[in-house]
Amino acid sequence: MSTGRIEAFSDGVFAIVVTLLVLEIHVPQVQGPDASAALGRSLIAMLPKFLSYVLSFVIICIWWIAHHHLFHLLKKSDRGLLWLNCLFLLCLAFIPFPTALMGDYPRERIAVISYGAVMTLAGLSFSGMRYYAFYVADLVRPGVDPALLKRAMRRSLSGPVLHLTAIALAFFDTRPAIALYAAIPILFVVPSRLERRIHGEDHSGS
Amino acid sequence: MSTGRIEAFSDGVFAIVVTLLVLEIHVPQVQGPDASAALGRSLIAMLPKFLSYVLSFVIICIWWIAHHHLFHLLKKSDRGLLWLNCLFLLCLAFIPFPTALMGDYPRERIAVISYGAVMTLAGLSFSGMRYYAFYVADLVRPGVDPALLKRAMRRSLSGPVLHLTAIALAFFDTRPAIALYAAIPILFVVPSRLERRIHGEDHSGS
Amino acid sequence: MSTGRIEAFSDGVFAIVVTLLVLEIHVPQVQGPDASAALGRSLIAMLPKFLSYVLSFVIICIWWIAHHHLFHLLKKSDRGLLWLNCLFLLCLAFIPFPTALMGDYPRERIAVISYGAVMTLAGLSFSGMRYYAFYVADLVRPGVDPALLKRAMRRSLSGPVLHLTAIALAFFDTRPAIALYAAIPILFVVPSRLERRIHGEDHSGS
Amino acid sequence: MSTGRIEAFSDGVFAIVVTLLVLEIHVPQVQGPDASAALGRSLIAMLPKFLSYVLSFVIICIWWIAHHHLFHLLKKSDRGLLWLNCLFLLCLAFIPFPTALMGDYPRERIAVISYGAVMTLAGLSFSGMRYYAFYVADLVRPGVDPALLKRAMRRSLSGPVLHLTAIALAFFDTRPAIALYAAIPILFVVPSRLERRIHGEDHSGS
Repeated sequence: MSTGRIEAFSDGVFAIVVTLLVLEIHVPQVQGPDASAALGRSLIAMLPKFLSYVLSFVIICIWWIAHHHLFHLLKKSDRGLLWLNCLFLLCLAFIPFPTALMGDYPRERIAVISYGAVMTLAGLSFSGMRYYAFYVADLVRPGVDPALLKRAMRRSLSGPVLHLTAIALAFFDTRPAIALYAAIPILFVVPSRLERRIHGEDHSGS
Repeated sequence: MSTGRIEAFSDGVFAIVVTLLVLEIHVPQVQGPDASAALGRSLIAMLPKFLSYVLSFVIICIWWIAHHHLFHLLKKSDRGLLWLNCLFLLCLAFIPFPTALMGDYPRERIAVISYGAVMTLAGLSFSGMRYYAFYVADLVRPGVDPALLKRAMRRSLSGPVLHLTAIALAFFDTRPAIALYAAIPILFVVPSRLERRIHGEDHSGS
Repeated sequence: MSTGRIEAFSDGVFAIVVTLLVLEIHVPQVQGPDASAALGRSLIAMLPKFLSYVLSFVIICIWWIAHHHLFHLLKKSDRGLLWLNCLFLLCLAFIPFPTALMGDYPRERIAVISYGAVMTLAGLSFSGMRYYAFYVADLVRPGVDPALLKRAMRRSLSGPVLHLTAIALAFFDTRPAIALYAAIPILFVVPSRLERRIHGEDHSGS
Repeated sequence: MSTGRIEAFSDGVFAIVVTLLVLEIHVPQVQGPDASAALGRSLIAMLPKFLSYVLSFVIICIWWIAHHHLFHLLKKSDRGLLWLNCLFLLCLAFIPFPTALMGDYPRERIAVISYGAVMTLAGLSFSGMRYYAFYVADLVRPGVDPALLKRAMRRSLSGPVLHLTAIALAFFDTRPAIALYAAIPILFVVPSRLERRIHGEDHSGS
């Protein structure tokens, strides 16, 4: 089984999820003589929704890049990888719901934890897919540096670890948890850039 | 007519259906001093919706894999197959509605039966497509083992048979019907794995 | 400019439109002691919505096949065709709205006329694209039989003519108009099959 | 990194955004003895929604053509371009929200300004991507005329300039602002056609 068909299907899901996020942002319904001011206030009150849209969009883009990077390293696919990929897509396709939930209830612990939980599950299923492809089934193209696999694996796990940390924070206060969610894309991208500069690589899974 | 264009169009529909399922899960609207507890209760009450999301997602993935397996066996396509495929996609694209219906009314017989009915129709149209390609129009690549076609055909029909059984159960009680719906993906995947091990095959339409 | 990129983009829009149709069918909200019966009645009352879903699905499939047939005849594309195609996609992507409108108000003249009007516009823009490619810009591959182009052109116009007839009927009574809408896919497919049998062709834009 | 995967992902997002626009147009809910007249009045009152649908559809088509034109000029892609493209897609995928907002509140300054602001951001991120590819990272295929790049760059900036002008107008009156929004696609297409005729080119980014 070639990797092409899994990549095309996954790319479709990535593109659709990223575009569906906006459908959870509804136009506020205001009426009456004070409509202008009410519309302005409604839009300002929707700020958490806009932020949670941007946040999910960026994280899904990071996963999209990492997904391509992973499949670029593989020489073939098998049924195990196919189902692990379906598990990852199941979590990925679910993201619009916790994104909207946290956007509507940024002060509610359960909403903020739900967001982190779905992100953790998506991250873990992605890590599982990487682990399976690298170390369980022999799917990696010959000649790939084992140190590169190890770094990709470590990077893959840093996402779930950070999201779990944010969930732990949310039990005390939702604000630092959201701040950490917002920082994760930055924490994710910057070290890999540094690392790349050190190692002089030209290709990396974010 | 090559099979490439049908596959690409079907893959698009598969990817979109699987991703649209989440749009039927709406963020609960709670207010007042008791909002935190109400939100928690609402999310717990939404459990059937989450389960029916997972269920439909997995079954659509099974069909996606089976669809690729089918077209992999064909040397070409014709107008009959094209329209049978459209009929299958019509049922497939309709799945988000009964999924949401059963998620909202897991105790209502008509909702549980509707879910099974759409799944049965989708399964039958898929079986019809397989039957047409294998035995009516001569579309199979030369050299494919007839025993393989027979097994694929039988497997294809086991889905509708199981869904019809679940519908019959739903007339007495919706809970065992839902339990059977949930068991179908497992019943579908496990025997084909066993069978594959016995026959030593490397490729199968689940 | 090759035709590949226009085809891929159009195929994406076709696959999405066909899948979005179901989102306009909302799960009925019933409550109280009489919920089971109310749910059953609601689903039966939704029959026009289901029929209008099937109707639009089939017509979009017919266009999808015709679109591929058209581009299969072309040797290249140009900016004029690109924009005529965008105009067609604009009408196509709008179809979910009149489909839902007619599904909600099958007895209202304006709803039934709106449906036919959008279908007429989509059909005319498709015919315009065909006319432009065949007779205005010289985009047809060499060696294509002019009689084939003429038949495709005539078939292309039969859709708008039939939809306009249905609109005219709707001014008197919406029921025969809807019946004609439902008959159009059949009227469209059958003669082209007959014609193909007579001419012994193997390829046709339905 | 080849440009193919970025183009396929972007094409997916383009096709989905353009098709999702219609989901923001909801079927009006009317009842009672006066339903026919009420439905007619509702549909007429929805005219701004239909216009804002057409407007956004056409502008996204212009960007789609320009996007292909840009990537057609490039020999390769890099991580910087990848992230600038993600930023552009983030703005692009957000368009259905301000489109629906302006469609619902065409007389409200904040709604009309929001529409222009998102269009300006999308346009600027597109210009940034062009600037980066042309002048920062050396991504252009050898042999491309620098004058062509300069014209594409200038054309790219005319969009944001026109949208900012419309925003400025909206502070005084929303009607001329909307008129300018509607004129932008025309202002965009016509000069580039003229220019192309003068320079005798056959390919151009809108």
